[in-house]
Amino acid sequence: MNQDLKTVSGFLFSGISCGIKENKPDLALIYSLYPARAAAVFTTNLFPAAPVCLSKKAIKSGKPVRSIIVNSGNANACTGKKGLEDAHRMQSATAEKLGIKAGEVLVASTGIIGRPLPIKRIEENLDALTDRLSKEKKPAAEAILTTDTRTKEYSLELDFKGKPARLAGFAKGSGMIRPNMATMLAFLVTDADIPRNQLDNILDTAVERSFNRISVDNDMSTNDSVFLLANGASGVAIRKEEELKMFSDALNKLCLHLAKELIRDAEGGTKVIKIMVEGAKTEAEAGKVARQVAGSLLVKTAAFGQDPNWGRVIAAVGSAGAAIDPDRVSVSIMGTTLVSNGEAVKGTDLKNLSKRMEAGEIPIQIDLNQGSGRFIAYSSDISCEYVKINAEYTT
Amino acid sequence: MNQDLKTVSGFLFSGISCGIKENKPDLALIYSLYPARAAAVFTTNLFPAAPVCLSKKAIKSGKPVRSIIVNSGNANACTGKKGLEDAHRMQSATAEKLGIKAGEVLVASTGIIGRPLPIKRIEENLDALTDRLSKEKKPAAEAILTTDTRTKEYSLELDFKGKPARLAGFAKGSGMIRPNMATMLAFLVTDADIPRNQLDNILDTAVERSFNRISVDNDMSTNDSVFLLANGASGVAIRKEEELKMFSDALNKLCLHLAKELIRDAEGGTKVIKIMVEGAKTEAEAGKVARQVAGSLLVKTAAFGQDPNWGRVIAAVGSAGAAIDPDRVSVSIMGTTLVSNGEAVKGTDLKNLSKRMEAGEIPIQIDLNQGSGRFIAYSSDISCEYVKINAEYTT
Repeated sequence: MNQDLKTVSGFLFSGISCGIKENKPDLALIYSLYPARAAAVFTTNLFPAAPVCLSKKAIKSGKPVRSIIVNSGNANACTGKKGLEDAHRMQSATAEKLGIKAGEVLVASTGIIGRPLPIKRIEENLDALTDRLSKEKKPAAEAILTTDTRTKEYSLELDFKGKPARLAGFAKGSGMIRPNMATMLAFLVTDADIPRNQLDNILDTAVERSFNRISVDNDMSTNDSVFLLANGASGVAIRKEEELKMFSDALNKLCLHLAKELIRDAEGGTKVIKIMVEGAKTEAEAGKVARQVAGSLLVKTAAFGQDPNWGRVIAAVGSAGAAIDPDRVSVSIMGTTLVSNGEAVKGTDLKNLSKRMEAGEIPIQIDLNQGSGRFIAYSSDISCEYVKINAEYTT
Repeated sequence: MNQDLKTVSGFLFSGISCGIKENKPDLALIYSLYPARAAAVFTTNLFPAAPVCLSKKAIKSGKPVRSIIVNSGNANACTGKKGLEDAHRMQSATAEKLGIKAGEVLVASTGIIGRPLPIKRIEENLDALTDRLSKEKKPAAEAILTTDTRTKEYSLELDFKGKPARLAGFAKGSGMIRPNMATMLAFLVTDADIPRNQLDNILDTAVERSFNRISVDNDMSTNDSVFLLANGASGVAIRKEEELKMFSDALNKLCLHLAKELIRDAEGGTKVIKIMVEGAKTEAEAGKVARQVAGSLLVKTAAFGQDPNWGRVIAAVGSAGAAIDPDRVSVSIMGTTLVSNGEAVKGTDLKNLSKRMEAGEIPIQIDLNQGSGRFIAYSSDISCEYVKINAEYTT
């Protein structure tokens, strides 16, 4: 399994500026030369945006997909009937331009909620968008960004007995991200040939282990979607258990890489906090604790301030709703044990530890000493910059 | 029911600096001249601090209470056996000094977690503390503060057919406050005479409607406690249903006032956000929605930036886990309807609305249009100042 710059066979990408945002790329297209099997995971927010409703239906039909069109700058959420009409126009205009069926086009939007989608600008720029289709993912990866400061891309090559298959993806999202995949979009493509039902399971697992384990601000958006298209262009048919396992591992790696990139680029964020919980009675209990610590604003601000304030970690562990025995809990930060059996460890050089917390990644290890349940979650720190960005987003 | 500056009969207070904090008051005492009935509500965090364990036991015994000793600057939490010993020393030394039984003294601590309590400084300063006992609450209200910028006090007088009874209280807490009463302490006293079991119920109700409905940062501390002492010194015996109702209403008012004071003084906070949910199927469902909006970091930063970003309100409503119908939801901010039946209302003067959000209190009204369940929650905004305060607390 190698990180690879080669392109995924049969997929073309494009990104342009159509005028939704001022002088910034805001319209992206993914196009498969061949019908692709598609799987997706969507937000569970009860106010799903219009494009989410539309794409969910298309995915549910189980029919092959050829293209995904995405705009940034406008979420087309809380836009009522008009919003759904606009999403349909976005879909059918793209299909017409590409000479495919409307049902073969998926739609995604991200940006400000509640404003009418400037659908005409999208329609009028479809020529420019399709004209620029190429093997290069970058322009598409750029056009889906909102408050992100950089693109998030990754690709892998898998070797199936001498035959290569490739996986690649790009994602956006830097705020409103919580364990349950919030304002984030991810587009994953592979030239492997995999049955549809397997694709679903493998994507669900990968999302559960990556995008659903990251926390920036505990809010959940109306537009989150992760799409996976498999067009089989590599000629590699993945059927056997070991092959499926290999592909699944690669997809997990791809998603985890992108998820950590989202955390790294969190609004105003300076650090990735990796919360490793072990010794829980079950994985679910470990998950409760890891997510609670990941979501703690006090842990986030302490990480920002390079403050090894394990008291805040303990406070979060104790309020996670998990069945823990406080007298057995150990906590270490950056490998230094600070709490052992529920009590503070004496004589730690906290100044030195604080200095080491300058590092880009801060591991926090929590051992509940009650069983073998484990769970890893990721969190960003919260800085003044975060507050500034979010206080001034629409005005 | 009048706001009253008269003192509660039979209660004395004192506050001094004993050296836990540098040159700041950090030790407080409440003393009742007569045995008082006591009720309390404690944190549900699984790492309760030593003083919480001790006071919980004393309250559970149902025996009368004469005094509460409180220190700030050190939480005496995660301090193991030594911590429990220290809490017991704090209790017995106070009892000895006051010539009462150890079991008649309650203990509370607030401050940094995991450091040994400087118990000697407390013991050595008990003379100074008891010497200063007076009718004046202010010094005690000052000595319990941590990151608070001001004291929180309130008192009420009730008229029972010409006979007055009084209620007063003070509280601390400005960060780590969430619906479930986090790093906060409140001390409530009354000279009314009320049966113990009634006292429990009335306090539970008041806490549920006040301290459990405020959100600063969604974290929950190891030390939260609300105490209520009733010494009967007014001679007013409260037994009849209408009397109990009157007292309960007054206690609700006292607690809500103190809770809103906590929000108003939230770390770096500039505004109180009042979230009123109505039209839910049940009160519990309304509560889920109100708490989710109250806890939303994006709503908090929007309030700080005076940004009427109702999209973030909607995103929080939709992810609250309540059974809502998105097409029926209405949202208004400062009385201006921004979303009606799930759709954005056109033509709102957002600039003017933003200007009006300068006000100290921002009401957000959410109507689910599905029933008669209602719930009110309170939240603070989150500013850069909050991040600064919390990034630098221990270091």
